[in-house]
Amino acid sequence: MTDPSLVTQIRTPPGTIDLGLGDPPFDLLPLDLLRRAAADAFAHRDPHFLQYGLEQGSLPFRAHLADFLARGYGFPISAESLFVTPGASGGLDLLCTLFTRPGQTVLVEEPSYFLALRIFADHGLQVVSIETDADGLLIEALEAQLKRVHPALVYTIPSFQNPSGRTLPAVRRERLVELAHDHDFLLVADEVYHFLGTTRQPPASFSAYAQEANVVALNSFSKILAPGLRLGWLQANPGLIQQLAGCGLLDSGGGLSPFTSAVVGEVIASGGLEAHINKLQAIYRERLRFMDATLRRALPGAEYALPEGGYFFWARLPGVDTSALRERARARRVDLRPGKLFSSRGGLGEYMRLSFAFYEEEQVEEGLQRLAQCL
Amino acid sequence: MTDPSLVTQIRTPPGTIDLGLGDPPFDLLPLDLLRRAAADAFAHRDPHFLQYGLEQGSLPFRAHLADFLARGYGFPISAESLFVTPGASGGLDLLCTLFTRPGQTVLVEEPSYFLALRIFADHGLQVVSIETDADGLLIEALEAQLKRVHPALVYTIPSFQNPSGRTLPAVRRERLVELAHDHDFLLVADEVYHFLGTTRQPPASFSAYAQEANVVALNSFSKILAPGLRLGWLQANPGLIQQLAGCGLLDSGGGLSPFTSAVVGEVIASGGLEAHINKLQAIYRERLRFMDATLRRALPGAEYALPEGGYFFWARLPGVDTSALRERARARRVDLRPGKLFSSRGGLGEYMRLSFAFYEEEQVEEGLQRLAQCL
Repeated sequence: MTDPSLVTQIRTPPGTIDLGLGDPPFDLLPLDLLRRAAADAFAHRDPHFLQYGLEQGSLPFRAHLADFLARGYGFPISAESLFVTPGASGGLDLLCTLFTRPGQTVLVEEPSYFLALRIFADHGLQVVSIETDADGLLIEALEAQLKRVHPALVYTIPSFQNPSGRTLPAVRRERLVELAHDHDFLLVADEVYHFLGTTRQPPASFSAYAQEANVVALNSFSKILAPGLRLGWLQANPGLIQQLAGCGLLDSGGGLSPFTSAVVGEVIASGGLEAHINKLQAIYRERLRFMDATLRRALPGAEYALPEGGYFFWARLPGVDTSALRERARARRVDLRPGKLFSSRGGLGEYMRLSFAFYEEEQVEEGLQRLAQCL
Repeated sequence: MTDPSLVTQIRTPPGTIDLGLGDPPFDLLPLDLLRRAAADAFAHRDPHFLQYGLEQGSLPFRAHLADFLARGYGFPISAESLFVTPGASGGLDLLCTLFTRPGQTVLVEEPSYFLALRIFADHGLQVVSIETDADGLLIEALEAQLKRVHPALVYTIPSFQNPSGRTLPAVRRERLVELAHDHDFLLVADEVYHFLGTTRQPPASFSAYAQEANVVALNSFSKILAPGLRLGWLQANPGLIQQLAGCGLLDSGGGLSPFTSAVVGEVIASGGLEAHINKLQAIYRERLRFMDATLRRALPGAEYALPEGGYFFWARLPGVDTSALRERARARRVDLRPGKLFSSRGGLGEYMRLSFAFYEEEQVEEGLQRLAQCL
């Protein structure tokens, strides 16, 4: 095996346990499942998936995906409402190119996914964050902000949020959709953890509202299959899909991922995706319990709500500056993500993000003990 | 085999011969080569290529690519100077996001690739076109324009241009690089046809100048392997590579194509890429000769310079409006791309683009006969 730092984003120094990572664990990347699917994709002897692809994404692939989503969501999904993206980040980037202009405002949750904030910055957008509580985005705080600014886009991570783990209740989802309509902003729901519920299922995906003018549900195979595929999808109304599929990038390069979507289409058709997700849920459920128990023992001062899915614990250490803690932790060969990374206003200094998903028990135990020694 | 219109960008009605297509022929998409390469990529039992990838692109892949390029270009190429993109269009889109702002000016050749023009439009850029002659971009015309505007970006297709087939001589390439330096614009050379010389090799790739501050050489596997992979690369100076690799999209999603670059890395390592390019050159050389002979017989009034590579004949039909011709042609089940598509100023109305690459002899013969009947 090659050194991961030559191939992957993971640059953890050898011997360091990085509890802050947002990557899936290496040993749960489904090498055999994808090897068989790739062989199946070539076995048809049909070269179409090697050609410039249909702009919206291959229809046979979207049909497989729609079947999978309908089973998972419990309501019908039309292949026509789906648009294939090169992952959630790629989808978000394309939405910013087509539907925003530099200087416009994007509203996000406080805290929010720090790398989405960087994509907005690259598009010259002004990010303003909205307060959240234990149930996620506070609708009243959003309404108050909407009196002051007209955002081009509101970005939410409604299920098992990164970093907070929080899940937005159905009633708030419905209010958000109403507000998007009334105030004419594009509501973008990043649902990459939707299928990773461990102790509960989230409320209906924003896909349920995607026929509404201004609602886009973003999703990806990164967390439920493999990020290296760079394959995702979004669901939106026909007019918006048409604008996406008709843009210059798509017209020039064709669909964004014909080859990988043919491979993943085989995974779905074989039933392998659901089986893999079930396996992930079972393993993450155990890892979540173990990190909870270990945190209580090793860091008894840490305050957190027990996550119900996703990847992360979002823990508050009262009186501790987690950015400074990170420096001490790295010296002791353990790492975390300090809360300030996830704030659009320099706040959240006592919080930290820890992933329960990446490591096995032994390393979590050792990592949290090292962290405890820094406090 | 599925209907191509469900999977690919090709929506040619059954029975129609579309001589205007810019796609590679289906029968030259290397299904077996890529099947073996995908199997090889999985055979290492190393899951790294399924993880979030290194932002700049996997180093082992870039090392294979650098070896291939050094052999092809005849000068050393460093893996550090290469950045992996999701195709040339994806690279161009990313450059627009990071290095331009709406309202700025882009200078292009007259004619130029019409879908690049659409990408610029999506980024809110003003496109101004510069005259060309039989050797491509006219440096004096560019210099005159540079006295009037300060472009953010100058876009050139220097080798076997789409649509004109023209190739920029070395001395003009050097002047362009000097002008990029003196006038501080980003010079983007789209070199996707560089390796598809049929009767000559082009002058040195702009890669040779990529250590200069403002020069980016864009390239892709779309024309030399398969567009459905959505895999390309660009070469630029270390500072620009660092800006690309450090942007929000890359930081969030990781490298743009880890899975497909692992597969294509195996193609290169096996020597299969050079063998495939040699095969393409030999077949396209014959197809070019055949279309030339058939054009002279079927459309004796057509004026054109014999292409020396790439895909296209760029033919002038004196006194004919090729947009109107297209309508008549479609009714007779033959298609072309009228010159106006490639103009940024509503000109080139007597020109048309025809591809010699896509069809076999029988269809070219039949297609050109149908077209002759429309004149």
